[in-house]
Amino acid sequence: MSRRRPTLAEVARQAGVSVSTVSKVVNGHLDVAAETRRHIEQLLEQHQYRQRRSPGRQAVGLIDLVFHDLDNSWAMQILAGVEQAAHEHGVGVVVSAVRNDNDRPGRRWLDNVRARGTDGVVLVLSELSPEQRSQLKALGVPVAVVDPVGDLSHEVPAVGTTNWAGGLAATQHLIELGHTRIATISGPTHMLCSRARVDGYRSALDAAGLTVPDEYIGYGDFTIPGGHAETHRLMELPEPPTAIFAGSDMMARGAYEALFERGLRVPQDVSVVGFDDLPEAAWAAPPLTTVRQPLSEMGQMAARTLLRMVAGEKPHPRRVELATELVKRASTGPPPS
Amino acid sequence: MSRRRPTLAEVARQAGVSVSTVSKVVNGHLDVAAETRRHIEQLLEQHQYRQRRSPGRQAVGLIDLVFHDLDNSWAMQILAGVEQAAHEHGVGVVVSAVRNDNDRPGRRWLDNVRARGTDGVVLVLSELSPEQRSQLKALGVPVAVVDPVGDLSHEVPAVGTTNWAGGLAATQHLIELGHTRIATISGPTHMLCSRARVDGYRSALDAAGLTVPDEYIGYGDFTIPGGHAETHRLMELPEPPTAIFAGSDMMARGAYEALFERGLRVPQDVSVVGFDDLPEAAWAAPPLTTVRQPLSEMGQMAARTLLRMVAGEKPHPRRVELATELVKRASTGPPPS
Repeated sequence: MSRRRPTLAEVARQAGVSVSTVSKVVNGHLDVAAETRRHIEQLLEQHQYRQRRSPGRQAVGLIDLVFHDLDNSWAMQILAGVEQAAHEHGVGVVVSAVRNDNDRPGRRWLDNVRARGTDGVVLVLSELSPEQRSQLKALGVPVAVVDPVGDLSHEVPAVGTTNWAGGLAATQHLIELGHTRIATISGPTHMLCSRARVDGYRSALDAAGLTVPDEYIGYGDFTIPGGHAETHRLMELPEPPTAIFAGSDMMARGAYEALFERGLRVPQDVSVVGFDDLPEAAWAAPPLTTVRQPLSEMGQMAARTLLRMVAGEKPHPRRVELATELVKRASTGPPPS
Repeated sequence: MSRRRPTLAEVARQAGVSVSTVSKVVNGHLDVAAETRRHIEQLLEQHQYRQRRSPGRQAVGLIDLVFHDLDNSWAMQILAGVEQAAHEHGVGVVVSAVRNDNDRPGRRWLDNVRARGTDGVVLVLSELSPEQRSQLKALGVPVAVVDPVGDLSHEVPAVGTTNWAGGLAATQHLIELGHTRIATISGPTHMLCSRARVDGYRSALDAAGLTVPDEYIGYGDFTIPGGHAETHRLMELPEPPTAIFAGSDMMARGAYEALFERGLRVPQDVSVVGFDDLPEAAWAAPPLTTVRQPLSEMGQMAARTLLRMVAGEKPHPRRVELATELVKRASTGPPPS
C-alpha cells in the first residue's frame, strides 16, 4: 500500500467532479453545493488529506475558540483564560458556538471559519459529531482542546483536569469528617469524566476500608432535576447516606432542593459536595463545598499550546491534566450523631 | 473657519513628523513609537480625521466585541446574543477585554485590532478612558454600544435597558405587598443607570403617596461589601426599612449577608429585590426576586445594528432601551405585622 497522499486530481476523479471543485472545497470557497462538498470532504478525510500551508502564508493573527453552546456558566472562565493568553501574543480570539447546525438558520460554523481564515482552533468539549470533527481536520490548521469531560480520544493536544483526583479529594474530605455512609451522584456514564470521578470516590472509600453498596451510586445526567431525583431515591433507601458527593454543582443544587423538601438540613443532616465551582456555588445556602476545575488556567494552557503550534513548534505533551482543588465551604460537616 | 478635513500633510506638519509616519498611524502599522503615535492620534482626533474606507474594500467578516473585563457573570449573556446575530450573518466575533492596558504586558488591544482589521466594534460598557475612545474613533469603523449602565454620551448607536422602569417595577412590587418603609441601595451616582433606578424607586413611592427619608437611600458601589455595609446602616436607623431594593444582585447578596448576621429572615422580616438577574440570583436562599436585564437581546440588537452599519446603512434610531422584567422569586413578601 502506498502511503503517498493522493493528489487533488485523484480525489476529483473519485468524487466525479472537476479538480477545481475539489480545490474550492480545500480552500474553503463557498460556491460548492453542500452535498457535493460533504462528499469531497469525506474523501479528503479518508485520504487524510491536509491542506498544506504555503510556506509564505502569513498568520492572520486570529484563533478560534469554539464552544458547543454558550449557555453555561463556565464558558466565561475558559474564555477569560484563552483571551489572556492570546492577548499576550497579540492575537485575537474569535468565539463561536457550533450548536446543532442542522437546526439553525444561516451558514454553518465551519463555512464561516473557512471563509475568513484562522491560525488555529481551541475546541471546548468533545461533543462534536464525527462529521464536524472531520470537517475541522480538513481545515488543516492546528487544534487544541480544552476538555473538562475527559475524552481521551483526541488526536490533538488536550488540556483536562484531574477528575479522578477530584473525586478522591471530595470523598476523603467526607471520610475525614467521620462519614461512613457516603453516596455519589454521577454524570452520564458515557462521559469519561463521570467515570473518573466515581472511580476516585470508590478509591477513597476503598482505601478507608469502607464498602460501597451498589445503590449508593446514582446517575443524575449533570442536571438539577437529575440530582433532585437521585437524592430522593438515595434518601428512601433503608440505610440512607449521611453524605452525597455530587459529580457537578448543578446536581448538588438538585440535592439541596430534594433534601429541603424532605425537611433535612445541609450539613447537619446530610453533607453535600459538588464539582466544578461555578460562580453560583458560593451563592447557595449553605455555600457549597465543591471541587474546583481550573477552567481559566485550562483555557490559558490550551491557547498557549495552540499558539506554539501556530508558530511551528511540535506540541508536547499530548495531554495535560491540571489539578482540581477542593474548595471547603459550609455544606459539609460531621455526620449526625 | 473652513470645515474642510485636513490632509495628512497638514497633520504631519503640525506633529513635526513625516507624512509617511502619519499614514502609518492612520493605517494601523505598528512601527511608530508609542508616544509619537499617541500625539498623531490626538491631532487626527482634533481634526476629526476618519480613515475612509476605499470603496472597493472588502469586509473581513469579523466584528470585535470588547468588554472592559471578562470576570463578570453577565458578559456571557451579552456574548451569546452578539454571537447569535453574527452567526446568522456569517460573521465571526472577536472577543477581547481592554483592561487597563498600561498595567498589562504585551501589545495594546487597539494595536491588535488595527493590525488584523475588523468590520466594526460592539463595545460593552462605557468605561473607556478618553484616550481609548479617541483611538477607537480613529479606527474609522462603525461602533455600536451595549450599555447596561445608561451612559447617554455616546455618539454611536447604543442599546440600553429601561433602568428607570426597572426601579419603578421593583418598588411597585414592594408597595403592592404592603410595604411602606422601603429603602434602596444605589450603585455609584456617577453612573446614570444608578440614578435612573433610584428615580424609578422615588417615582413609585411618590405615586403611592409615600415619603422617602433621605437616610433610606444608600450607596453600595454595586459590590457585595457595599450592599452589606449599607444594609447594616439601614437596619440601625430608628425606623429601619421592611424592604430593600438593591440596585444590583451583588448588593442584594450583601444585604442577605448583613440581614443574616443580624438574625433577620428574608422575606419574613425584610424583603429584598435585586437588579440584573445574574445566574447566581436563582441560587440564593431564598431565591432572589430581581429585575432582569435582557442582556442577550441587548447584545443581539447591538450586533444587528452594527452589521447594518457595516453594510452601509445609516443606523436608526440612535439609542434603544429594551424593557426590563421583574422576576418574582422568594425574597419578597408582606411586611412583618
